[in-house]
Amino acid sequence: MNALSSSTLASLIADLGDIPTVTDAKIVRRRSRDFFWYSPILNEQLDGKSADLIVAPRDEADVVRVAAACARHRVPLTVRAGGTGNYGQAVPLEGGVLLDVMALATIEWTKPGIMRVGVGAKMNAIDTELQSSGWELRMHPSTKRTATIGGFVAGGSGGIGSVNYGGLREPGNILAARVVTVEEEPRIIELRGDAAQKINRTYGTTGIITALEMPLAPAWKWIDVVVVFDDFMEATAFGYEAALADGIVKKVLAPITSPLPSYFGALKPYCPDDKSILIAMIAEPSLESFKSLLGGRGTITLETPTDDSPGQVPLYEYTWNHTTLQVLKSDRSVTYLQCLYPHDRLLEKVAEMRDLFPDEVLQHLEFIRFNGRVTCSGLPVVRYRDADRLNEIIRLHEERGVYIANPHVFTVEDGSRYKRIEADQLGFKHEVDPYGLLNPGKMRSFTSTRP
Amino acid sequence: MNALSSSTLASLIADLGDIPTVTDAKIVRRRSRDFFWYSPILNEQLDGKSADLIVAPRDEADVVRVAAACARHRVPLTVRAGGTGNYGQAVPLEGGVLLDVMALATIEWTKPGIMRVGVGAKMNAIDTELQSSGWELRMHPSTKRTATIGGFVAGGSGGIGSVNYGGLREPGNILAARVVTVEEEPRIIELRGDAAQKINRTYGTTGIITALEMPLAPAWKWIDVVVVFDDFMEATAFGYEAALADGIVKKVLAPITSPLPSYFGALKPYCPDDKSILIAMIAEPSLESFKSLLGGRGTITLETPTDDSPGQVPLYEYTWNHTTLQVLKSDRSVTYLQCLYPHDRLLEKVAEMRDLFPDEVLQHLEFIRFNGRVTCSGLPVVRYRDADRLNEIIRLHEERGVYIANPHVFTVEDGSRYKRIEADQLGFKHEVDPYGLLNPGKMRSFTSTRP
Ligand SMILES: Cc1cc2nc3c(=O)[nH]c(=O)nc-3n(C[C@H](O)[C@H](O)[C@H](O)COP(=O)(O)OP(=O)(O)OC[C@H]3O[C@@H](n4cnc5c(N)ncnc54)[C@H](O)[C@@H]3O)c2cc1C
Ligand SMILES: Cc1cc2nc3c(=O)[nH]c(=O)nc-3n(C[C@H](O)[C@H](O)[C@H](O)COP(=O)(O)OP(=O)(O)OC[C@H]3O[C@@H](n4cnc5c(N)ncnc54)[C@H](O)[C@@H]3O)c2cc1C
Repeated sequence: MNALSSSTLASLIADLGDIPTVTDAKIVRRRSRDFFWYSPILNEQLDGKSADLIVAPRDEADVVRVAAACARHRVPLTVRAGGTGNYGQAVPLEGGVLLDVMALATIEWTKPGIMRVGVGAKMNAIDTELQSSGWELRMHPSTKRTATIGGFVAGGSGGIGSVNYGGLREPGNILAARVVTVEEEPRIIELRGDAAQKINRTYGTTGIITALEMPLAPAWKWIDVVVVFDDFMEATAFGYEAALADGIVKKVLAPITSPLPSYFGALKPYCPDDKSILIAMIAEPSLESFKSLLGGRGTITLETPTDDSPGQVPLYEYTWNHTTLQVLKSDRSVTYLQCLYPHDRLLEKVAEMRDLFPDEVLQHLEFIRFNGRVTCSGLPVVRYRDADRLNEIIRLHEERGVYIANPHVFTVEDGSRYKRIEADQLGFKHEVDPYGLLNPGKMRSFTSTRP
Repeated sequence: MNALSSSTLASLIADLGDIPTVTDAKIVRRRSRDFFWYSPILNEQLDGKSADLIVAPRDEADVVRVAAACARHRVPLTVRAGGTGNYGQAVPLEGGVLLDVMALATIEWTKPGIMRVGVGAKMNAIDTELQSSGWELRMHPSTKRTATIGGFVAGGSGGIGSVNYGGLREPGNILAARVVTVEEEPRIIELRGDAAQKINRTYGTTGIITALEMPLAPAWKWIDVVVVFDDFMEATAFGYEAALADGIVKKVLAPITSPLPSYFGALKPYCPDDKSILIAMIAEPSLESFKSLLGGRGTITLETPTDDSPGQVPLYEYTWNHTTLQVLKSDRSVTYLQCLYPHDRLLEKVAEMRDLFPDEVLQHLEFIRFNGRVTCSGLPVVRYRDADRLNEIIRLHEERGVYIANPHVFTVEDGSRYKRIEADQLGFKHEVDPYGLLNPGKMRSFTSTRP
């Protein structure tokens, strides 16, 4: 961390006028963290990294002013929203400003099937607001109750709902983004259609997003369902059938192997010992068809309307990256991976991975659509030995055609499946952040050409 | 046709009491036909087949009374609804009663995502009725403006909407069916869940359906779009991308080769000479994403809200089996086929079939989901030579892994992809129609065990 000189800091703050700032080192250090501690490797690498100050713009005009000031003083700027990212995405590696965008939370407008919203809006607040009009977000991460729409687009990939719509990268899942550049005279750029992908999952290195136009899904009455199976592969085979059954409306299908459910706190009464489970969210009118498809193959132990109002723990908080969190709550010796299974050999490959690491890599899958095909994202819980063994496990997956988006690295490139950045994202980075001040160190292919 | 003896006819009519009947031979003969004339082969085989009388029950109690009377007198009974079937499905091969169920058209109830409706309701009337509550049928045939929901379930397979939900056979696409048996004392059976498939596409041989519980889809504002391409394979490749793009909400995607659009009457202004087209229905909020995906590859010549109100010709009346009809209007020398392409070699197989019969089999595809995978149903227009050549064309498709549901045969078995009936449909037939009176001759695997 290259701490700012006190003179730079003072002139920066002076330039910010009445925009709220926080300089209390303890608070700044705490807010400079995210959930990177999931990874024992990142936990060592990122420990102690901190911004110099937090700046909290009240609106887009404030954002422009901060961006201009940072450009002028060549001060790094890292956007932070809910701070629920997993790979130190929002951790400033070179200090500077931590831009807290939570106040940009206004829903600008909604139309049938589309909304335009400030980036700081929490996804749960969005869905609550939309409910009465019959719409909801197409997808959300399992951190919906604390994470923002901007953080999801800039740092996330998909989640609950991706079994229908695929991930954020699929055409049509981000309609437009409004971006502030980091220059002495910041510009505001509206990216529409395919171009909006330039800010997807670049960890805030390709501009400060202030507003997003997001497509909406018709809201269903969702039912949280737990189905218990003797064997994990049975849970997976049934989950696969349900995922492929286009006549059954669902939002999540997550097979989780025994013994993981034994860590599931409040859910334990519905998870008999030594059994695997399938967690599902099914639209109420499809519940009968779901049961008909299940036949006698598994036992439903929980069936209750999804409730993510304050104080409630919805079932989706046992899925996606939350599955690992539930285990970490009582066992800090584990970590996890993020796998993408090939759609054309899905069950075969899942069985192969399971057999390869029977006790070391504990299977947890999420059915998704990917490029229009049903497949699984795997988020297995891994009993951690050391970094070498973890990398070997990754290698053994990739050699066998199971792709890994490594959650133990902090750059955009290393965390991506292909270990590289999209060409148009890199090009766009030069346009919007010529001095390389946005979350520096996260996009390692980028070298600033401007002093 | 085994015409009823006049004494049987008289006692049957006496048993029917005040239920409306029609015995005027001209009218009966006319109503005993459907669209089998699409097929030159069926046109010869079925010409002149007729019922002896039409009976038009006013409600389910009337249906029970007709069923009892037919059982008692051993009179064949063939259900007829809109009469838009393609394979002589509703043509009585052995005379008897033609049961006109169009009066059973009441919507019993609707709930979010589900409706229960009398079989005689026209699908267009259903959607019009549902519109204000924000729902619509998940799928409908291109005959939506004249065909009934009962006829669709008993005789159809899928259509506009199947690119999202698959066909009627997919789990969850028929929730329940109420069926009257043909016995001296008819029973009423409620089939729910998977069991409801027993009446799907059995041409009314497995019971008289009186009511259906059907799942609904959230209604979108649909936009009719015509995209023009230089080459058919380009239209198909783009259609495939759009079909796979789960973030783009659509209802139909139909690539149609040049010169077929030149037959498209009112649509001709949007179809330049020698070009192939893609017909699409896209949800309004997805239109921008659809265009973004298209890029510069094709030219949009039509973009207008779908309107199927009286007097309007919606774009979907150029898709599915309507494509062939549009050509038949000015050229009676053609016929058609119904193909199912393998999902894992789709474009390759389409190109192969196109090259195999460049001028004889004119390609028209419909993107669908089938068992959870995106593939195409092919409904090519075939320049007809003779039955032998048609059968050879079918054989050449099947040898190359393109399955044919033959539309030139009139039994359930011969028209199915596997040339057989489902075991549980056959078993159910014995339960509900012990004397084999329902649409006799259509389920050829069935032999009555009762005199
Ligand atoms: C238990 C748990 C479960 C999770 N489940 C999922 C899941 O199911 N799916 C999934 O995709 N992710 C998941 N995540 C990761 C994370 O929660 C999500 O990606 C979430 O949407 C991040 O939102 P946030 O508001 O917390 O963003 P932050 O963590 O604050 O930021 C994330 C990244 O986006 C950048 N950023 C934020 N706002 C902006 C902006 N306005 N402009 C530019 N850059 C910006 C930040 O700089 C950072 O790089 C999970 C994490 C945890 C800890
Ligand atoms: C131009 C054209 C386009 C078409 N497009 C499509 C399409 O896109 N998709 C598709 O699947 N089909 C299509 N078809 C076929 C047909 O239009 C549909 O299947 C339609 O739904 C049939 O409905 P109907 O009311 O006309 O039924 P009918 O033709 O009257 O009956 C169809 C069959 O169902 C039986 N039946 C009807 N009602 C009942 C009942 N209550 N109980 C038991 N049996 C019953 C009849 O005995 C008959 O065997 C098309 C046909 C044409 C001519």
